[in-house]
Formats: sequence, structure tokens, C-alpha cells
Amino acid sequence: MIIDRLVTKIRDLSAPIVVGLDPRPEQIPSHIKDETFAREGRTPRAVAEAFLLFNKGIIDQIYDIVPAVKPQIAMYEQLGPIGIDAYFRTIRYAKEKGLIVIGDIKRGDIASTAEAYSTAHIGKLNIEGTDAANPEYSSADFITINPYMGFDSISPYIDDCKNHDKGLFILVKTSNPGSRDVQDVVTEGGKPVYAHVGALVSEWGKDFVGEWGYSMIGAVVGATHPEESAELRKAMPHTFFLVPGYGAQGGSGKDLEGIWDGDKYGAIVNSSRGITGAYQTKKFGAPDKDFALSARAAVIDMKTDLGGFIK
Amino acid sequence: MIIDRLVTKIRDLSAPIVVGLDPRPEQIPSHIKDETFAREGRTPRAVAEAFLLFNKGIIDQIYDIVPAVKPQIAMYEQLGPIGIDAYFRTIRYAKEKGLIVIGDIKRGDIASTAEAYSTAHIGKLNIEGTDAANPEYSSADFITINPYMGFDSISPYIDDCKNHDKGLFILVKTSNPGSRDVQDVVTEGGKPVYAHVGALVSEWGKDFVGEWGYSMIGAVVGATHPEESAELRKAMPHTFFLVPGYGAQGGSGKDLEGIWDGDKYGAIVNSSRGITGAYQTKKFGAPDKDFALSARAAVIDMKTDLGGFIK
Repeated sequence: MIIDRLVTKIRDLSAPIVVGLDPRPEQIPSHIKDETFAREGRTPRAVAEAFLLFNKGIIDQIYDIVPAVKPQIAMYEQLGPIGIDAYFRTIRYAKEKGLIVIGDIKRGDIASTAEAYSTAHIGKLNIEGTDAANPEYSSADFITINPYMGFDSISPYIDDCKNHDKGLFILVKTSNPGSRDVQDVVTEGGKPVYAHVGALVSEWGKDFVGEWGYSMIGAVVGATHPEESAELRKAMPHTFFLVPGYGAQGGSGKDLEGIWDGDKYGAIVNSSRGITGAYQTKKFGAPDKDFALSARAAVIDMKTDLGGFIK
Repeated sequence: MIIDRLVTKIRDLSAPIVVGLDPRPEQIPSHIKDETFAREGRTPRAVAEAFLLFNKGIIDQIYDIVPAVKPQIAMYEQLGPIGIDAYFRTIRYAKEKGLIVIGDIKRGDIASTAEAYSTAHIGKLNIEGTDAANPEYSSADFITINPYMGFDSISPYIDDCKNHDKGLFILVKTSNPGSRDVQDVVTEGGKPVYAHVGALVSEWGKDFVGEWGYSMIGAVVGATHPEESAELRKAMPHTFFLVPGYGAQGGSGKDLEGIWDGDKYGAIVNSSRGITGAYQTKKFGAPDKDFALSARAAVIDMKTDLGGFIK
């Protein structure tokens, strides 16, 4: 199962780290943008090509020290169809390098609509005998999903997970301050909504537990809420966590002390800007052309920071 | 404001109806599929072209009797980039025919990620001076958004709404049975989660109320919960409702009695399969080539059904 492969890779590398590939134009070195704009003009295609070159540069420098990458589809989607093309090419490249890919798509819808999203992102198109596969594409190993619409918005993905060895991470407690607006509302039983959703996610995943004791249905739990995440860790022992909010969003290794589960780790922590934009920072600053070397240095630094608190 | 334009069109046509453009391969007449498969082979492109031809056929028969259409992006997204292309071409065609377009995308994410989704769907790409606009594309007038991540997952869209005269429909109480899993959980104040979210949506929208008394920030409220929707109507007097779940999902005109607000209507009811697949039903059955005439008949029938209960 893919969740076992993820845990094994995290253990082998001692790196519960996923690098977020959320390309932001201001983080892409000008030599890359100059090249693609010269070739393609001031077009979405030029930006998409720059995103892809940037991602490849990062991947080449980190694929041997982290288990996974997480492209954020919104960044690609804003470029229109050519951006979606770059998203899938990024996945393909990462998988060729042996990385596990978490597609951060946060989709949520019901019935045949969810089936269509599942087909798009972890399944296989089979309409009138068509084959979707552009040979340069590949699909993510995991995707993120929004639970607001309930179990019938989750169940359509489960078949594809089983058939194609994929997994899900369902939003439980997100890292943003606004997560309090809905997720922290206290229910009549005294539990906040996020804890209720956590219990549902745990229940939904119980029949799909792999060799390491974690389900193929995981949870998104933000790094910015140390108490809540420690509490969720205890309440959801068979649920693997995807943890956003480290670094640029404010979470630190210390804040994550409560999410680990011994040498099985039990969680993977995302950093996006903190790694891909490291070359522009004081700490890891480097000339533009060495952007990916700075990313590598930032990963190693993050590994040390987290490691100090993993018990 | 776009919300005023929507209310005015609904009143002028006495039709609080939006036609869902969620093409399902089994609903597309074989003469259309035969043509595009002959031209493009068994490819996602052929399916995308079939979707577009089908949509255009439907639009040509309904644009003068309904105010709006609602393409469901998942159906297009499953085809990959070429599907996203068909989604935007569908929007363009509908807008050329004078229809208001609600993009059913149900995105939800925070900060710069939400900004990217907003750029993708209601904004304008401006990265390094690029212009996204394929001249054959156009962007939706409204989009649907998921509230689970809270206000900072909504606020990034508001600027684009103001700058480009767009609107939002935020999920409050959805039409699917599973909506009970999270939305019906009772909070400590005694209100269910959906009512709490309804109150937030009402609050978020209060500064953006147009001439008809409705905000550019609306709510998605399913047709399948008559009591809940009537209760939300009372609690949210300045919020316009997008109502899924009529027809194929089980909701009827009678179930919707409580959502109206006199001759301002206050809601627009979606039907997808019930209209676009009408030619395959006993009631509106017709030869394949007349699929769009059946769709028109189904719209007129729906108008009668709803009209009997609007006070």
C-alpha cells in the first residue's frame, strides 16, 4: 500500500518532510523566466514552462533526501489548461525520480461529481474506451480532500484508492487562522468540529490500515496548533497526518512535538516557500542560479529542526 | 452588480432556474460522439469536443427561457487540460448567448492559494505582464466555494468580485444525504453547523448588498431539506440561494415552498440531468437528434412545477 511505502521512505531517510511545489512567480529566478518568456512570449505557456523548469531544478536537488513532494494545483490552475498540463508533468517528473506525490487539490463534491474528480486525479479515464494518458502525465499518489459534504463526498475516491493504490488526506484542522471559524466551533458533546471530523476520518479509514498501522485515508492537521494536533494524534492512532503550516506559516519543530508516533513518525510535514524560496532568504541566500542548492540546504536544516523533537 | 442582474433576469423570465451543464458521456447522443470520435479518435479531446457540442445544443434551446447555466467543472477536469479548455469554451458560448454563468468549482483553500483559484476562475492572470486570455475563453460570473477553512479562505475572492463584478455561492447545506455528517452536527448553542455557517455567510456578505437586497455573496442550500432551507431563508434575508438537488436528486417544487421571497424570488434552482438528459426519459422522450428540444420542454415543465409554489 502507498501509505506503507510513504512510511518506509520517511523512516529510511529519517525525513518526515514533503516539499511543497507551489511555484510563485516572484520566487522563480529570472534566468528561468527570461528563457521561457523569450521562447514563448508573455503568455501563460511561458509561465507554465518556467514553473516546470523551476520544479525540476528543485526536484533534482531534493529527491534523494525527502520522500515526497506536494504540488499545489491552484498555482497551476490559474494559468488555465496549460497550467494543468504543467501540474501533471511535474507529477510525472517527480515520480520518475522516485518521489511520492501528494496532489494538493482540496476537492469536495458528491456522487458522480466526486467520481469525476477521482478520475481526474487518482483514477483512469474510461469514457467510450478513451485513454486519457498523455504519456508525459502521471497521477498523484495521494490527494487532499475537503470533508464538509460528508461521507458520500469521500466514498467515490475509495474505489480508485483500492484499484490504483492511492491514498487520501482529508482536511481536519487546517493551519490558517480562519480555520477557527468553522473547525473550532464547539459541538453539543463538547468537542470542536475538527475533532468530530477527525473521528469520522478515523472511522472512514479503519478498514484500510496497512502494515505500519496507518490507514490509506489520512488527515490534514496544521502545524500551527500544537495542542490540537497533539490531541488529534492521541485520538487518531491509525491515521497518518499531513501537516501544513511549518516555516513560512509560523509552525516550528517545537510546535510539532506532539504529532509524532515514535520511529513510525505518523506524520509528514510540508514546507513550500521555506524550501523553494530559500535562496532569497538571509539564512540560505545564494545567487539565482543556485536556487536549488539553497532548497537542499533548507531541507537539511528542517530535518535537523524536526529531528530534535521526534521521540 | 451581477447579483442584481441575476435577480432581474429571473424576474423578467419568471424562471428561477439554472441549467446544470454536467455532461455525462451516457447522456450525449451518439451522433455527436460518432462525429467527434471520427475526427479525433478515442481521445480525451474527442470527449471534450462532444461535451462542447452537446452544451452548445442545449444552450441554443434554453438561453431565451432561463437566466443562467452552471457548468460543473469536475466533469471537464476528468479529461485533463483539454477538458478545462472545454469548460472555459462552454462559459464563453453561454455568455455570448446572454446567459449568466455559475461555475460550480467548490474550491476551498487559503491565502495565496485562494488568490490563485480566484485568478483562475473569476480574476485575471497578471504574472510578469502575461495575459491569460485565450480569446475563446471567458470566466464565470459566480463560483461556488467551500467554507470549511473559514473566512481567510473566502476573503481572497472578494477583491476579484468587486473588481470584476463577480459573485460567490458558499456551501451551507448541501443536497446530498451525507451532508448530515458534518453540516448537521449540533453545536453547543443548539444550532447545527450549517446554521452557524449560514450566519457566517450572511455576515461576510452584508457589505455587498445590491439593489434587490441580496448580497454578491450567496449560499448553496439543497432542495432536499425543505425544513432546513425554509429556516435558512428566514435567518438569511439578504442572502441569495443557489439550490441544487431538484429533480434527479429528489427535490420537488413542493419541497421548495419555503425558500422563496415573493417576486424577488431569492433563490435559483439547479437542474442538471433532469434537463440535459430529458430526451432519454419517458416524460420528455425524443429521438437523439432532438435532445435539446426535450431539454427545453423539461425547463418549461420545471418552471410550471416551481411556479405553483412561489408566493
